[in-house]
Amino acid sequence: MTSLLGTSFIGSTRSSGTNSCGQGINPATGETLAPEYFSATPEEVEQAVRLAADAFPAYSAIPGKQRGAFLRAIAERIEAAGDEIATRGPKETGLPEARLRGETGRTCGQLRMFASLVEEGSWVDARIERAQPDRQPLPKPDIRSMSVPLGPVAVFCASNFPLAFSVAGGDTASALAAGCPVVAIAHHSHPGLAEIVAAAVIMAADETGMPDGVFSLLYGGGRAVGQSVVKHPAIQAVGFTGSRAGGTALMATAAARPQPIPVYAEMSSINPVVILPGAFAKGEETLAEAFFGSLTMGVGQFCTNPGLVFLTEGSGDAFLAKLKSLVEAGAPGTMLNAGICKAYQESSSSIAAVSGVETLARSSADCGHGQGAPAVFSVSAKDFLANEELQGEMFGPATLVVRGSIDDITAAVSALEGQLTATLHATEDELAANEALVSALRNRCGRLLFGGFPTGVEVCSSMVHGGPYPSTSDGRSTSVGTMAIHRFTRPAAWQGFPDAALPAELRNGNPLGIKRHEA
Amino acid sequence: MTSLLGTSFIGSTRSSGTNSCGQGINPATGETLAPEYFSATPEEVEQAVRLAADAFPAYSAIPGKQRGAFLRAIAERIEAAGDEIATRGPKETGLPEARLRGETGRTCGQLRMFASLVEEGSWVDARIERAQPDRQPLPKPDIRSMSVPLGPVAVFCASNFPLAFSVAGGDTASALAAGCPVVAIAHHSHPGLAEIVAAAVIMAADETGMPDGVFSLLYGGGRAVGQSVVKHPAIQAVGFTGSRAGGTALMATAAARPQPIPVYAEMSSINPVVILPGAFAKGEETLAEAFFGSLTMGVGQFCTNPGLVFLTEGSGDAFLAKLKSLVEAGAPGTMLNAGICKAYQESSSSIAAVSGVETLARSSADCGHGQGAPAVFSVSAKDFLANEELQGEMFGPATLVVRGSIDDITAAVSALEGQLTATLHATEDELAANEALVSALRNRCGRLLFGGFPTGVEVCSSMVHGGPYPSTSDGRSTSVGTMAIHRFTRPAAWQGFPDAALPAELRNGNPLGIKRHEA
Repeated sequence: MTSLLGTSFIGSTRSSGTNSCGQGINPATGETLAPEYFSATPEEVEQAVRLAADAFPAYSAIPGKQRGAFLRAIAERIEAAGDEIATRGPKETGLPEARLRGETGRTCGQLRMFASLVEEGSWVDARIERAQPDRQPLPKPDIRSMSVPLGPVAVFCASNFPLAFSVAGGDTASALAAGCPVVAIAHHSHPGLAEIVAAAVIMAADETGMPDGVFSLLYGGGRAVGQSVVKHPAIQAVGFTGSRAGGTALMATAAARPQPIPVYAEMSSINPVVILPGAFAKGEETLAEAFFGSLTMGVGQFCTNPGLVFLTEGSGDAFLAKLKSLVEAGAPGTMLNAGICKAYQESSSSIAAVSGVETLARSSADCGHGQGAPAVFSVSAKDFLANEELQGEMFGPATLVVRGSIDDITAAVSALEGQLTATLHATEDELAANEALVSALRNRCGRLLFGGFPTGVEVCSSMVHGGPYPSTSDGRSTSVGTMAIHRFTRPAAWQGFPDAALPAELRNGNPLGIKRHEA
Repeated sequence: MTSLLGTSFIGSTRSSGTNSCGQGINPATGETLAPEYFSATPEEVEQAVRLAADAFPAYSAIPGKQRGAFLRAIAERIEAAGDEIATRGPKETGLPEARLRGETGRTCGQLRMFASLVEEGSWVDARIERAQPDRQPLPKPDIRSMSVPLGPVAVFCASNFPLAFSVAGGDTASALAAGCPVVAIAHHSHPGLAEIVAAAVIMAADETGMPDGVFSLLYGGGRAVGQSVVKHPAIQAVGFTGSRAGGTALMATAAARPQPIPVYAEMSSINPVVILPGAFAKGEETLAEAFFGSLTMGVGQFCTNPGLVFLTEGSGDAFLAKLKSLVEAGAPGTMLNAGICKAYQESSSSIAAVSGVETLARSSADCGHGQGAPAVFSVSAKDFLANEELQGEMFGPATLVVRGSIDDITAAVSALEGQLTATLHATEDELAANEALVSALRNRCGRLLFGGFPTGVEVCSSMVHGGPYPSTSDGRSTSVGTMAIHRFTRPAAWQGFPDAALPAELRNGNPLGIKRHEA
């Protein structure tokens, strides 16, 4: 067990900041957890980013096989800290130990997935067009291109995935895999987990001979430290998972820099589920149970939580009756932190006051300290279309049922803001017969499901966990799966270079044996 | 010959706007060219974008082979208008007929390149991960992904490539190839060429049965029409080639929308050329002649024009002497329009007043109406580093020679803004011995050349015509070559879909026979 110090990691050295930025808080009890944490000073922020910038030329030139070894070492070090994570995690996050152990596995799985990707090496999209000196009217030069890393990346830790989207989560893993040093900014909601994982990353960097500055972790109160990192001229991209307000603030900062930089913010999504009548043939109550399971998983604190259900008029009465009874009997759960709990209580109260909205059911159990309970509301498709505020996210186990004709539903879906996911429950005949609805769903989301539920995001090569704004800041990207690495790269071309001076990926003999596009 | 009407194309119908936005002007004489042109009205702008949005579902679903036929038909129609282009073009642009005929060929070549790309179909990066229902602890769902088009795209025509980066140029060709309808905004510098080419596009759309609204061309004075297109909620991306002021204005507009959208602006670049002493072994005068050819090609009005040359102290005296004599004897040339000519005269005058800058040579010939003449300036690397304004673009046949030690040059290169290209002339030994310099050059540009000159951008699969800001707004992209299509797409995933409901690219039998990633 390492003992927690409460200080930032400025590369391989520890911060000496003395301004408190608070302590971890047990959301189930409100008690504070030792130790106290200290903000990185402005000088330390500068030092961390400078170290990252200085590490970039060396780190980006390290072959994929060695970068893979670094990522694998991080995974091993995190696994070695598994008991520590399982002890500290539930206290800081309110999440059960089993979830934290599962998320540790997912985090290490992601690190190893990116390790495999860069060890194999074809991901760089190497393209080779050889010279044709005799071409008329002009000779053709030798031009070769591949993806190269952008530079130091700022990664903001997420509250709802304290491991898989935090210090060494998907953003960090994909940025490091791409060849970009990472300056991570801890989330105040789990400072201890952040420290445990950062120590693992730093040990792994040391063990595998990575340059100092390839990774730093900064603590800070409020938004000052995070904003100053994003404003720093050496930072070349930003990864973020969190609220729409937080994400759009970073987008504004990044766009206002003398050199604007890309921000990959995964923000809000209400993940519409459309159920057409034929889908009920399999059993309305069974579908309601499955839906309720997705709605309440992790106390509804997943970005793919199904916050919106469309039903055609006159169908799904038994589904709704069962959903109501499940919600009424639903147990409250401890939410991640006091801020999220308060925001959930507010958003799931204020929606009931919107014109046309009916509260179908609320959990009848009393909420304990820091808890949120399931709730389900309903509204007509016409009223939904008339009230943009009904597209606001209730981050927690609440959902809004919208009923209308198929045309009303198609119009409502067409008017939705961008979503991470959209789900259609229907027969294959209904799928074929409702082209306009399916096209509207396709247009509004990153991942379109036929059947099933959006929670549970598979980490694989075909996953798209991204979607049109505001579900993400940049719908041209995914933050889950192997394609996430492309967020931190740009294409670069070499013209007329001698073979020995080219990167190995582009040399004549294809020494790495990767897949290449050769014309 | 079609007769020019002076009105916008709102899809397949012609505008009825009555507000004049001026006429073409012969930059060599200042005379105005018939007909008068008329701004699209706000209602017509709305109509053009609405038509594009309405065309999007149908157009984006059209198979690649049919989209390819549309692009090929555009090329044929443009070729059929070749004489008309060659007659009108020189009058509007000051460019010689041979250049316009050559650029017509390049434009049609680009259209056919994108046609081949989408007819073949593998460009969509299809990824297939099949279900594993028995996987423990959880079943794996069937997830498939590919690139899908973003939606209607605004394309701004460029003054310096009145065909290859205008109405049916690279931006339009790649957006149409991706499945995105295009709303083009004409450049005031060549309204007649724009009308000729737009008529060709509309005829091709009609011949190949494309939905009305797949293409529109709008005329407008000032920036009102262009800005209103970019602000329109249905527009999903912007393509632009032009000035830094113009590009950054569009970036600001796009970022301030309720839904921010990507802007691909190819802006300013001064394209540094570093010549190390060994490169002179091949002949200083020969190198000076080749450099002068690149500098003055097209009166220096290429985005890859070499506006900056680094020489190590004590080397290249004969190169400079020859360059001076070539510049002094250099003929002025007619520039594209009065605004560009004025800006060139101003920037190539004001640089001489910057501390430490010496005017090495100016053309001794008198400039006629609308003409610009070659000029070469010099400064020490230390003064260059101390004066950021020396990184400003002189758009025309002027260049700045910077001399210093190899360390000074490396420091100056490291401090450069982002560039489209960087070029190194050196021996292979010098290339190997100057890792820091080469790394700095690589970091600052999209395309790095060893020998040769940056003008002449090969249109092929490996070309990267993009670079870090401000050479482009988004260094993760290229505006030339097949990769340009990816600017107008996003990844989209389908989960659990029946085979028949999937796009052909993702079906089990691979009916299109494309390359896919299958896990």
